[in-house]
Amino acid sequence: MIEEAKLLSSIMPMLKVPVHQVAGHQALDGHLGPLVDESGKFYKPLQKDDRGLREAEFYETFSSDDQVPDKIRKFFPKSFGTQIVEASDGSGPLPHLVLEDLISQYANPSVIDFKIGSRTWSPQATEAYIQKCLKKDRETSSLALGFRISGLQLYEGQESGYWKPERKLTIRYTADDVRLVLKKFVSSNQASDFKQDPDCTFASNVYGGSSGILAQLLELKSWFEEQTIYHFYSCSVLMVYDKELLVKGRQPSPAIKLVDFAHVVEANGVLDHNFLGGLCSLIKFISDLLTIPNECTNKDGMQNGE
Amino acid sequence: MIEEAKLLSSIMPMLKVPVHQVAGHQALDGHLGPLVDESGKFYKPLQKDDRGLREAEFYETFSSDDQVPDKIRKFFPKSFGTQIVEASDGSGPLPHLVLEDLISQYANPSVIDFKIGSRTWSPQATEAYIQKCLKKDRETSSLALGFRISGLQLYEGQESGYWKPERKLTIRYTADDVRLVLKKFVSSNQASDFKQDPDCTFASNVYGGSSGILAQLLELKSWFEEQTIYHFYSCSVLMVYDKELLVKGRQPSPAIKLVDFAHVVEANGVLDHNFLGGLCSLIKFISDLLTIPNECTNKDGMQNGE
Repeated sequence: MIEEAKLLSSIMPMLKVPVHQVAGHQALDGHLGPLVDESGKFYKPLQKDDRGLREAEFYETFSSDDQVPDKIRKFFPKSFGTQIVEASDGSGPLPHLVLEDLISQYANPSVIDFKIGSRTWSPQATEAYIQKCLKKDRETSSLALGFRISGLQLYEGQESGYWKPERKLTIRYTADDVRLVLKKFVSSNQASDFKQDPDCTFASNVYGGSSGILAQLLELKSWFEEQTIYHFYSCSVLMVYDKELLVKGRQPSPAIKLVDFAHVVEANGVLDHNFLGGLCSLIKFISDLLTIPNECTNKDGMQNGE
Repeated sequence: MIEEAKLLSSIMPMLKVPVHQVAGHQALDGHLGPLVDESGKFYKPLQKDDRGLREAEFYETFSSDDQVPDKIRKFFPKSFGTQIVEASDGSGPLPHLVLEDLISQYANPSVIDFKIGSRTWSPQATEAYIQKCLKKDRETSSLALGFRISGLQLYEGQESGYWKPERKLTIRYTADDVRLVLKKFVSSNQASDFKQDPDCTFASNVYGGSSGILAQLLELKSWFEEQTIYHFYSCSVLMVYDKELLVKGRQPSPAIKLVDFAHVVEANGVLDHNFLGGLCSLIKFISDLLTIPNECTNKDGMQNGE
């Protein structure tokens, strides 16, 4: 076994802990978690229960599913099968899902992870799992909002780095907290500064426009109003862009990505009403920022700052 | 008390048990249930716990809510306050909600009652009530479909009357059962005949067109994509039309109505993602019948009958 591990290590890519991961298990302090390489790949350890297997199966099915249009496929990470690599917790070589590292192209990513759906469990799950999820859905924002924020980091600047509130806080955000964070996400002032109102300077650059966050969410929504192939339980929508590029007058590449497919089940010809409802709720928060007068306006009344 | 009851009876309208009620408590065999009068009014007894009070409050708030556009108000029954009338179970005079009798204008109504939402309980409900609803949502179609059929009656003809499957069956309908019933709803053959495929003769007259069922549902949906005033838990969408009129070449008045507001709560600035998801699911079933080739076609390949 030791010989085998050594052999595998010798052909393994150089892996490191991802810097910009905001949710999920993290490969820090000897824990098991995902790793990334220099070429833009993300290595996610297969979880030991059947979750890992189910996520691997999902990627396999999805990648060859010709019912999924290309304009929707772009919201999903590319997948490259599974590979055995040295686990981050030092427990030896373990099978990992090899995926596209969605964040690697961003030097200074601001990221929010929304776990979509007021219900994170499928009717087919075990009773113990259902009770565990139901408890968490009731304790967090999921029931009220149709989603919860599983984690976030907002870029503040080269010196101050990122504002990264604790996950145990973000999962309980109220509607007002979510509104505030969505404003901070696109503001030029420091996200960690709660004394100043966020100025929403970059709202139209990031949320608006034909390739902005809102347009992408609406494209995703239109697919969920049609597709009766998959039900995505406990799946997240990632929202990401690079504020530093905007400050420098360049394209900030705002993007929507779907991640975490360990609880995807067959839709059996029925819409994913749970995901769709939560997605519509998120869309409403963002479209309000763009359309309601003064919702995203400087105190002096000038929209989109100076 | 007896004197008072006599006095009230003397000024009370002549009330009778509604003939076409498909769901909810029914005023039959000495039970407490709603009554109707000759003038098109529906008398719903206020339930003894706080449900009746909350429904009365909802109608009062809603009727004076100027945020609700007229094009949406038409989906709700008109309300005329409360009135004390003789209860159907002979228990004496009781306060009743006085509402528009939505079915009174139909001589031969085909009706389906869809209880919308995969969750019929609000987060604010009592633990006992939540557990009761959750159990029922899991045992019935609600979790899988985003709605369940609380009852239905389909008109067959002057002689054979109505096909009215038992409620304990309809609440457990699968996606395939729902598809079949939605076809039967608009077919010229007998709904109770399971040997023949439903011919969907009237699909385009009832579901299609600018004032058909689908157009009405889409109008309702567009409001639910905007409104952050109310969350409608355990509320039903009624779908009704008169097939006999169609057979005679007249307008069948297909209509969508919302009923049962005992569990409406404030939305606190968040979309009703639970109702919206379920509504989208129902819409998908109906739009598929109109748009998928052969989904609603005679065996001989002729669409919409002869």
